[in-house]
Amino acid sequence: KVPPGFDYELYNRNDINKILGPKASCISFKDSACRCFGYMVAKDPSGKAVNALEQHIKNLLCPSTPFFFNTLYDPFREGADFVRGYPFSLREGVPTAVSHGLWLNIPDYDAPTQLVKPLERNTRFVDAVLTIPKGTLFPMCGMNLAFDRDLIGPAMYFGLMGDGQPIGRYDDMWAGWCIKVICDHLGLGVKTGLPYIYHSKASNPFVNLRKEYKGIFWQEEIIPFFQQAVLPKDCTTVQKCYVELAKQVKEKLSKVDPYFDKLADAMVTWIKAWDELNPPTAGSVPNGKAA
Amino acid sequence: KVPPGFDYELYNRNDINKILGPKASCISFKDSACRCFGYMVAKDPSGKAVNALEQHIKNLLCPSTPFFFNTLYDPFREGADFVRGYPFSLREGVPTAVSHGLWLNIPDYDAPTQLVKPLERNTRFVDAVLTIPKGTLFPMCGMNLAFDRDLIGPAMYFGLMGDGQPIGRYDDMWAGWCIKVICDHLGLGVKTGLPYIYHSKASNPFVNLRKEYKGIFWQEEIIPFFQQAVLPKDCTTVQKCYVELAKQVKEKLSKVDPYFDKLADAMVTWIKAWDELNPPTAGSVPNGKAA
Repeated sequence: KVPPGFDYELYNRNDINKILGPKASCISFKDSACRCFGYMVAKDPSGKAVNALEQHIKNLLCPSTPFFFNTLYDPFREGADFVRGYPFSLREGVPTAVSHGLWLNIPDYDAPTQLVKPLERNTRFVDAVLTIPKGTLFPMCGMNLAFDRDLIGPAMYFGLMGDGQPIGRYDDMWAGWCIKVICDHLGLGVKTGLPYIYHSKASNPFVNLRKEYKGIFWQEEIIPFFQQAVLPKDCTTVQKCYVELAKQVKEKLSKVDPYFDKLADAMVTWIKAWDELNPPTAGSVPNGKAA
Repeated sequence: KVPPGFDYELYNRNDINKILGPKASCISFKDSACRCFGYMVAKDPSGKAVNALEQHIKNLLCPSTPFFFNTLYDPFREGADFVRGYPFSLREGVPTAVSHGLWLNIPDYDAPTQLVKPLERNTRFVDAVLTIPKGTLFPMCGMNLAFDRDLIGPAMYFGLMGDGQPIGRYDDMWAGWCIKVICDHLGLGVKTGLPYIYHSKASNPFVNLRKEYKGIFWQEEIIPFFQQAVLPKDCTTVQKCYVELAKQVKEKLSKVDPYFDKLADAMVTWIKAWDELNPPTAGSVPNGKAA
């Protein structure tokens, strides 16, 4: 049931293969990572980027404040502002590229935590939206996520996961590390907090453990890699940043596992496919720049 | 009225002058900055460091997580944990040195914001405690603040403010910038959020403007200074870090105003006075190290 004002098109694997040809190799199969194909082709009925729900839209439409922490959280919410001691030069903020919503009830835990705490439920409604500071990474969950496709779309790639791959359940994490490094570099904001969704169906922890166990030790090397990643100044668009990041993944993570070599190639293919399906039009602003 | 289990000693200016002698020059007069003298001598009736209220104590007694953001906020609160994708190697956390509580009702705004929004009240109770990430500064308000005196006490200096000084209302901000840089360097945590206090008496915005107007433009240079400050590896105690920071203040902020030259000297005097009134005892751990 599609709410009024929204519409959908349905693509199966055959459609993806037909549309992308050999570039379809960058789209995962039988894993939630496949959702990013939708990001590549999403339009609303008028042909503009898809809208998300009200709070996500509010989050995305008001600026982020990644350079200094505001203790009353999002200063742009009604009834809030910048507190005493917040530099005036930073109060304009920066454009918000990503809005990361949370979940009540079933928490988004990894398999070991699911196994240890099968009955834990998240019942704490935290009435806050906040900018994740520049230089800080976070675990981005794909369950309740909105983003500005013009600003950050080409970096919202969920990797190669699931069928035929050595790993699953790290699709959103991978995208989260990449988008945060790129947003920090381009001066874009990432918010987390509201809106909440109610999450009622826990996934099977035994199945999850099988999918994610390599990620659990790989992330101990991947996260320091992303924490230390520096993008050169001439990376001025999301596409340039992403291809540079792919190069660094190949250089520094292939020693962790040959999988990262393949993933780095898929990242480059993804950008080629993105640009093919989203050719720049007269007067359009490059991805990563506020219009 | 002092609640059971707590006690107090009263010190006026004459007492401070008598106890500190010429070192009393580092303690401000007629400004909330004078409160830090209490930090230097505070003991509970049994002679141990003063306790604060329950939530502050909880915040301080459980670890902080400054190296990676947890989207469910403090993972050590009941009903919460680290979410999927949080590296296991970072889940031990680091000792918490500072707990920064918030305020409902009258918000802690600077004079210009007070003047523009005289009727704004903070009515949003945000049920969260979170670690301010490493590398991120925040505006620390002194109204509802607790800290571990053993871990960070010697850096909790509120500067020279008020009577005879060109500035006021930046005492807590100054302390906040200093403690955050030092906590980041020493691997200690700073939390903000709960507990809330109800703040009912707004200060006069016209008086505030007179006190703080220099701070409003000085902070535009002070904050980049603290954001870029690097402490050398041999600064292994709070005292060493603080004296080094004083040196850098003298070098880099004196050009903003000669006041910072005087403040840098006072910072050094403060550490000398602290060490005089808090001589190390047999088996005691240096400030900045967890026992």
